[in-house]
Amino acid sequence: MIDLRPVVHILGWISGLIGAMLFLPAAADAMADNPDWRPFAESGAFALVLGLSLAIATMRTKPLSLDLRQAFLVTVLGWIVVAVLGAIPMMGIGIGFVDALFEAMSGITTTGSTVIVGLDSLPPGLLLWRAILQWIGGIGIIAIAILILPLLRVGGMQMFKIESSDVSLEKVSTAVKTIVWLAVIYAALTSLCGALYFVFGMSGFDAVTHAMTTLSTGGYSTHDDSFGHFPQASLHWIAVTFMVLGGLPFGLYIKELQGKGLSLLSDQQVRGFLIFLFCAGMGLAIWLVDNLGVSFGEALTISFFNVVSIVTTTGFASEDYGQWGHGPAGFFLVLMFVGGCSGSTSGAIKIYRFQVLFLFVNAHLKRLFSPNRVIPLRYNGRSLSEDVAMSVLAFLAVFVATIAVVTVILAALGLDLVTAYSASVTAITNVGPGLGPVVGPAGNFAGLPDAAKLVLTGAMLAGRLEVLALLVVLSPDFWHYG
Amino acid sequence: MIDLRPVVHILGWISGLIGAMLFLPAAADAMADNPDWRPFAESGAFALVLGLSLAIATMRTKPLSLDLRQAFLVTVLGWIVVAVLGAIPMMGIGIGFVDALFEAMSGITTTGSTVIVGLDSLPPGLLLWRAILQWIGGIGIIAIAILILPLLRVGGMQMFKIESSDVSLEKVSTAVKTIVWLAVIYAALTSLCGALYFVFGMSGFDAVTHAMTTLSTGGYSTHDDSFGHFPQASLHWIAVTFMVLGGLPFGLYIKELQGKGLSLLSDQQVRGFLIFLFCAGMGLAIWLVDNLGVSFGEALTISFFNVVSIVTTTGFASEDYGQWGHGPAGFFLVLMFVGGCSGSTSGAIKIYRFQVLFLFVNAHLKRLFSPNRVIPLRYNGRSLSEDVAMSVLAFLAVFVATIAVVTVILAALGLDLVTAYSASVTAITNVGPGLGPVVGPAGNFAGLPDAAKLVLTGAMLAGRLEVLALLVVLSPDFWHYG
Repeated sequence: MIDLRPVVHILGWISGLIGAMLFLPAAADAMADNPDWRPFAESGAFALVLGLSLAIATMRTKPLSLDLRQAFLVTVLGWIVVAVLGAIPMMGIGIGFVDALFEAMSGITTTGSTVIVGLDSLPPGLLLWRAILQWIGGIGIIAIAILILPLLRVGGMQMFKIESSDVSLEKVSTAVKTIVWLAVIYAALTSLCGALYFVFGMSGFDAVTHAMTTLSTGGYSTHDDSFGHFPQASLHWIAVTFMVLGGLPFGLYIKELQGKGLSLLSDQQVRGFLIFLFCAGMGLAIWLVDNLGVSFGEALTISFFNVVSIVTTTGFASEDYGQWGHGPAGFFLVLMFVGGCSGSTSGAIKIYRFQVLFLFVNAHLKRLFSPNRVIPLRYNGRSLSEDVAMSVLAFLAVFVATIAVVTVILAALGLDLVTAYSASVTAITNVGPGLGPVVGPAGNFAGLPDAAKLVLTGAMLAGRLEVLALLVVLSPDFWHYG
Repeated sequence: MIDLRPVVHILGWISGLIGAMLFLPAAADAMADNPDWRPFAESGAFALVLGLSLAIATMRTKPLSLDLRQAFLVTVLGWIVVAVLGAIPMMGIGIGFVDALFEAMSGITTTGSTVIVGLDSLPPGLLLWRAILQWIGGIGIIAIAILILPLLRVGGMQMFKIESSDVSLEKVSTAVKTIVWLAVIYAALTSLCGALYFVFGMSGFDAVTHAMTTLSTGGYSTHDDSFGHFPQASLHWIAVTFMVLGGLPFGLYIKELQGKGLSLLSDQQVRGFLIFLFCAGMGLAIWLVDNLGVSFGEALTISFFNVVSIVTTTGFASEDYGQWGHGPAGFFLVLMFVGGCSGSTSGAIKIYRFQVLFLFVNAHLKRLFSPNRVIPLRYNGRSLSEDVAMSVLAFLAVFVATIAVVTVILAALGLDLVTAYSASVTAITNVGPGLGPVVGPAGNFAGLPDAAKLVLTGAMLAGRLEVLALLVVLSPDFWHYG
C-alpha cells in the first residue's frame, strides 16, 4: 500500500496556491466592472479552503519526504488537480465542461491549443487566467524536471541530476532553495520580457499576458490572430529571444548566477539547440525569399519567429504557414517533434534525446561491423551509461506508440488524417497548433467533437509527463507491488 | 581495406542467376509472338555473361568465406545489382530509366508499388518478369534473414541465430543445405498456391504470376484493379492463407519438416502474429458490417483479405479502403508498420520487435518505481539479452527517422502530406500501396515526379535492408576502420 498522506499534503498546497492565484483574474474583472469576477473569486475561495484543509489534515511533525511511488503520484495528480481547479471558474462563466477542461489542461501543460473563439472581445479575467495557468505550468514543469524527474529516471532525465548541489527529495531545504532560485529567475525574465513588450508597443495588459505565455513557451494569446496581431518586427524578435530563453535548461541559469563559469554556452545541449534553431531558421528564410518573394529581412523575422515558436513548443502563430505549400507543412510537422532543452518549459522529444540517440545509434552501427570495438560514449564530458540510452529509447518507443494510438482514435472519431495526426502530435509534444484548416495555426480546436477534445486533453497530459510517468501510474503493478 | 573479391564473386553468381531467369519472360513473349522477347533475351545474355565472367575472374581454390564487412556489402550490393539488372530489359521495351529502376526495385524488395498503367493489356513477358523479380526477392530476403542478418546482429535478428543447426557463414555446406531446404519449401508452397488459384478459377498465367507474388508477399498483379479483378471469395481466402504462410518464419518450416515437434504453433512470434491478424480482421469486419452495411460473410472476406495483405506487407488491393472514411484510413496506416515474422518474406517492423519492445518497456516501467527489482526478460523460452533490446530500439529509432526524412523530402517535392507520409511509410515498410488518390490502393505511383520516384526507390531498398544494414555501409567508418 502506498501511504497517500504526503501526496495529499502536497496536492493541498498546490490547490491552495491555485486558489490564491484565482483572485488575480477576479481582481482584473472587478476592476473592469465585469460580473465574471464572482466565479473567479468563488472558485478561488473554494480551492484555497479545500487546499488548506487537506494540507492541514495531512500535516505531520516529521519533515516531509516522498518515496519513488509517492513522487510519481504527486507529479501526475498535481497536473490533474490544477487542470480541474483551473477549469472550474471557466465553467462558472458559461464554458462547457469539456471545453473548460481542455482549455485548462492546454494551459497548465503549456500546450496553448485553444477552443475559445473571439479572444479579442473577452473580459480581462479569463484572458489573464489563461496566461497565469501557462505561467504556473511553466515553472511547474521546470521544478519537476529539475527536482523530481531525474530521480524518477524518466526518459533519460537521470543525466541531469544536479550532483554539485546534491538535491534530493529528502533534502527539503536544498529543494526549497532551488525552487526559490528558479522562481526568482523565471519571474525576472518574465518581467524583463513584459517590459520590453510594453516599451516596443504592446498595451500593458497584452505585455503582461504575453510575457507570461512567452517564458512558459505556452503560446496563449489575447487575440484570435495570435502574435500576428502585432505588426512590429521588434516585438517578434523580443518573443524569439524569450522563447529561446524559456527553452534553455533553467538549472544552468542557476549555475551561471552562482558564478560557476560560462556553463550555458559550453553545454552540449544548449549548443545543439542554438545551432539547430539557426540552421532551421536560416534554411526556411532562404526558402521564403526564393518561393514567396519576401525581402530577406522580412523572411528572417517570419522564419525565426515561427521556427522558434514551434521548436520551443510555444505555438504562437504569426502567419498561417499551412498556406505555404506541402514542403513547409511537412517541415513544421517534423519541427514539432524536436522540443527545447531538458529542465526548460518546452515539451516534445527534446534536444538531448536526439543527441543521445545519435551517439548511441552511431556507436551501434560501428559495432555492427566491428563487434569487439570499444566505443566510449560521452555526453557533456561525462560518460553516457547504457541506462540512459535505454531510458531514452524506451521514451521514444512509448512516445511514437502514443502518437499512433491517438491518431487512430481521432481518425475513428471522423477527423481527416492530416488533422488527426497533426493534432495528436501537437498535443503530445505540447506545441499548440497542428496542421490543416481546423487545428492549424489559423484554425481553432473548438470545431472538434467533444470526444476528440477529451482524447487530446489526455494526450496533452501524457506529453507533459513524458508519457512514461503517466504510464507508470496507470500500470496495475504500481499499486500492487510492495 | 576490404577484400572485395569474395563480394564480387557472389555478386557474379547473383548476376548469372538473374541472367538465366530473364530467359523465362523472353520465352513467354516469344510464345506470344511479341517482339519484346529480344530485350529480355539480350539483357539475359548480358547478365549471364557478365555474372559468370565476374564469378570466374574472382574464383579461388580455398572455400568461400566472408567476414562481417564483406557480408554487409554482399547484402546491400546484391539488392542493388538485381534492381539494376532487372530494370535493363524494361528500359529495352521502352520504359524510362527512373520508372524501370523504381519498378525493378519495387519488385525485388517485394514492395509491389507500381508505376506501370494498363497492366491488363501488357504482353506476358513483362508481367512474368515483375512476378519473377518478387519471387526471387522473397526467397532472397528469407535466405538473408536466416543466414546473414542474425550474424550481422541487425535490429535484434541475433535472437534468431539457428543454434541447433549451427549455421554460420564459414560453414558453407550447412548454409547451402539450408538454402536448398528453403528453396524446396518456397517452391512447394508457391506451386500449391498456384494450383489452388487455377482450380478455383484463375487462368494459368494469372495463377502462376499471382502465386509468385503471393508467397513473396510482394503484391504485383497482372491487372490494374489488382486482386479486385477476381470476384471469387474462394480466391481471396486462398490468397489470405498463402500470404499468412509467406509471413511466417521459414526457419520454423524447416524445423517442422525435420520432425522437431510442433515448433510453429508453440512459437511466441507466430502466435502473436496470428492473434494480431485475427483481432484486426475481426474488428474491421464488425466495423464494415456496422458502417457499410455488408453481410458478415462478405465483411469477413473483405476485412481479412485487406488486413492480411497490408500486415504481411503484400499490398494486393481488393477494394479502395481509402473510401471507407478517415478511421479505416488511419487504421490501415498503422497496420503498414506491423509486418510479419522474422525470417519471412514480409517487411516493416515485424511482430517480434513489438513483442521485445513490449517486454522491455514494461520491465522498464516497473523498474522506474522499484529500481532494485530484478525482472528477467524471456522471449520464446530464452532469456532476452540487453543487446537484443538495444538493437531493436536502435532499429526503431532509425526506422522512424528515415520515414520522417523521406516524408519531408517528398513534401518538398510537392506531394501533399497524406501522399508524402503514406508513400514514405509504404516504401520503407515494403507494403506497396499508400493512402490518397495518387498512391492509394486505387492509385498508381506513375503520377509522381521523377525525383520522388528515385527517393522512394532508395526508401524501398533501405526498408528491405532493415535500414541499419544500408546505414552501416554508408558510414565512412565502415570503409576506413581496419
